Amino acid sequence: MNTPVAAVRQDLLDRIRQVVGDKGCITDAADMAAYLNGWRDGWQGRSPMVVRPANTAEVAAVVKLCHDARTPIVPQAGNTGLTGGSTPGMAGNEIVLSVNRMNRVRATDLLNETMTVEAGCILANLQQKAAELDRLFPLSLGAEGTCQIGGNLSTNAGGINVLKYGNARNLVLGLEVVLPDGQVWDGLRGLRKDNTGYDLKQLFIGAEGTLGIITQAVLKLFPRPRDQQTAFAAVRDPQAAVELLSRARIASGEAVTGFELIQRFGIDLVIRHLPQTPDPLAQKHAWNVLMELSGSDTGLRSTLETVLAEAMEAGLVLDATIAANQAQARAMWKMREDHAEAQKELGLSIKHDVSVPVSRIAEFIARADAALGKAYPDIKHLAFGHIGDGNIHYNPGWENAPGVAAKAKERDPINRIVHDLVVELGGSISAEHGLGLLRRDEVKHYKSPVEIELMRTLKRALDPHNLMNPGKLIEI
Amino acid sequence: MNTPVAAVRQDLLDRIRQVVGDKGCITDAADMAAYLNGWRDGWQGRSPMVVRPANTAEVAAVVKLCHDARTPIVPQAGNTGLTGGSTPGMAGNEIVLSVNRMNRVRATDLLNETMTVEAGCILANLQQKAAELDRLFPLSLGAEGTCQIGGNLSTNAGGINVLKYGNARNLVLGLEVVLPDGQVWDGLRGLRKDNTGYDLKQLFIGAEGTLGIITQAVLKLFPRPRDQQTAFAAVRDPQAAVELLSRARIASGEAVTGFELIQRFGIDLVIRHLPQTPDPLAQKHAWNVLMELSGSDTGLRSTLETVLAEAMEAGLVLDATIAANQAQARAMWKMREDHAEAQKELGLSIKHDVSVPVSRIAEFIARADAALGKAYPDIKHLAFGHIGDGNIHYNPGWENAPGVAAKAKERDPINRIVHDLVVELGGSISAEHGLGLLRRDEVKHYKSPVEIELMRTLKRALDPHNLMNPGKLIEI
Repeated sequence: MNTPVAAVRQDLLDRIRQVVGDKGCITDAADMAAYLNGWRDGWQGRSPMVVRPANTAEVAAVVKLCHDARTPIVPQAGNTGLTGGSTPGMAGNEIVLSVNRMNRVRATDLLNETMTVEAGCILANLQQKAAELDRLFPLSLGAEGTCQIGGNLSTNAGGINVLKYGNARNLVLGLEVVLPDGQVWDGLRGLRKDNTGYDLKQLFIGAEGTLGIITQAVLKLFPRPRDQQTAFAAVRDPQAAVELLSRARIASGEAVTGFELIQRFGIDLVIRHLPQTPDPLAQKHAWNVLMELSGSDTGLRSTLETVLAEAMEAGLVLDATIAANQAQARAMWKMREDHAEAQKELGLSIKHDVSVPVSRIAEFIARADAALGKAYPDIKHLAFGHIGDGNIHYNPGWENAPGVAAKAKERDPINRIVHDLVVELGGSISAEHGLGLLRRDEVKHYKSPVEIELMRTLKRALDPHNLMNPGKLIEI
Repeated sequence: MNTPVAAVRQDLLDRIRQVVGDKGCITDAADMAAYLNGWRDGWQGRSPMVVRPANTAEVAAVVKLCHDARTPIVPQAGNTGLTGGSTPGMAGNEIVLSVNRMNRVRATDLLNETMTVEAGCILANLQQKAAELDRLFPLSLGAEGTCQIGGNLSTNAGGINVLKYGNARNLVLGLEVVLPDGQVWDGLRGLRKDNTGYDLKQLFIGAEGTLGIITQAVLKLFPRPRDQQTAFAAVRDPQAAVELLSRARIASGEAVTGFELIQRFGIDLVIRHLPQTPDPLAQKHAWNVLMELSGSDTGLRSTLETVLAEAMEAGLVLDATIAANQAQARAMWKMREDHAEAQKELGLSIKHDVSVPVSRIAEFIARADAALGKAYPDIKHLAFGHIGDGNIHYNPGWENAPGVAAKAKERDPINRIVHDLVVELGGSISAEHGLGLLRRDEVKHYKSPVEIELMRTLKRALDPHNLMNPGKLIEI
């Protein structure tokens, strides 16, 4: 089955306008730009109309109209994804349906530790809402000021707190979804135990809008940690980082909420890009970790001190500093977060959002560096990220220099080297960014025919006319 | 589509025997009894053969043979379920496929905090294996000495540690599954972040063997708590119990690993059944909780003391005792666990495994008790269970007396009263036991047509010939 390519009919657009009103429709090219183009990485698309329903009933009515007309829909929330998953194609035959007007917190229930929210709520606003209730909503990632929860759930977003709290999937108790034919599935239950048949919400979480449109969700809340301790430690090598993580988890009873690998080259790039960035340690070391313990345990700081001292004794840690206050901790985290931006200092950066079992991280980095170094002696190695989850942003590249642009042709062969190794080590070629368009075909190279066919079976069963974000995640 | 009813052909049985050998086949009636009858609650079935493959390849070969012959299969692990989900029908036209010979731990990976196990591993053995590694595998339930992990995953088992660690679904990183046509899906990945398409393992977890047979799993391990503090507290009423839970979670930063509601009537039944059972408090109170804090925090006991003292001050807690040692804690838990057995002291016990949002527990109990008390003035009220997850074992009944057997006819009207209220409060009529046969039709009374049809769509897509545990969970 191929993606429909017929142009969108004017009478469909007129009927949609009748449902959502003028303020629910954008057709002006300048106003549509933010919806048609990706946030980063140059994704671009075309569409005759961006539709912004005000509520679930309007979403359902619009989807029903599109279904009956066999016009495909690209669901969109904050449009901050990095894989082109929320960008329409260039054919202009798809409606963009944005949930960004649906941004209300519908209910909070402190004794149940839940909040019920609409899909267009900005993540940072939900974090803020939880804080006002003296609770934590732990999902946290770089785009949190712009991304919206419907997109976070549709991509099963990760971020910096996965180690303790899990991915977005783990933070949801219930969903409301508009199905491809416009029917509404009301699974907005706030239950921690429910075994009355297939757990349907799992289908839609991480489906990148290809099986339906998430319109509301019941999210879990957590106690707010009463204390937080942050350390920056130079480690012997990546294997030492992994062993330090294990020690910290055991000693603190899972109070480790952040554990990020940071390379000296990454720090250098950040300082080059933002010269006011403080260097956490006096001496420079090739490999470092930023670690954070959170909880209500009054002994967190002493636990952290003990773990670091014992790890130093064991030769895993070479030097370390514990943030004396929130401002210092904040500065350490800012340096980590600035890695994304600082990579612009490179002339070309070839990004990989991969994961391997935590126990294979050191092997992955060593072998990937060696293989790329052999093929490209002048390549710069850069690896950083959430190694507590086995997730590495492995982004080698070249410094700015004449001719660097021509290196872009090495992107595919480099992807092949990196992804081959990832899969050999039992890993994933897209740990937290999803497939979208960017990795849709690449994944076919690695997944078994059985798995690809299972995915197609699901897509065909739930979206038989291929109208929901067609061509994203999987082709049918 | 109806369940196939053709008799199993002898040539199929012969071919299966060629695959698994004589020791993989049971056809003797006495030897088959343990596989054909339910562990409790009187489920009974018939089958010409119980097949016990030694490995995944044999499972796949047997399933392929059955698929080609259109002979249905009842997958079975420990056969300890309470809803008839692993019992074949009385028609005798189904093969029982038991995974109980597949009981090896295939791999452990301490730095990745995982173990890879076969589906027939007994849960208690996996707990023990984790303990030998100085780790915790937190799934824990009454049947743990007999139930097998394949069944735990297929029913998304709950148990006593869900509050902190989640249901069985939350403890799995990867699965291997034999699909209804005999193909093997190898999703045995040990990754904490993987967003390369639909998360297929979620389909099979909790599917009660209706979409395929789980043959192996990668399970998560956790740090072993260094301390555990257990208290028994009399509370003002169920609402006070819920408020105490909230206080304890906030004060301890989620160190609450157990929180069980216990009624005086339940304690009385246990003491009647097992007279040596110690009564935890000197005074008798109608409502009580058993609570447990676990972690590596050295201040757990003082946190527990503070929480209880403040809750007493606030009028939530009437009296409380903290176990002075492990033996006392064990005795408190044993009294809770003995509730299951002690209900035999009642002449008739009408069991409900329900959940509601935690915030609605008190309302549920009050309204259910009132409604049943109005309809049946002589009924005995009994509610207990994992209220930290919103899960209540609501088991009213009648004392042993002449004529009590005739009360069994009230089962259906009582179910209707209880389940109507559960659903009105946004709850689930099967919190942790699944649907099987017991609740398969009952759930149709409550789920929306959209949800029922989505479940059917999934079943039809993955098992088009309706060969995997047909008639369980959902009819198609």
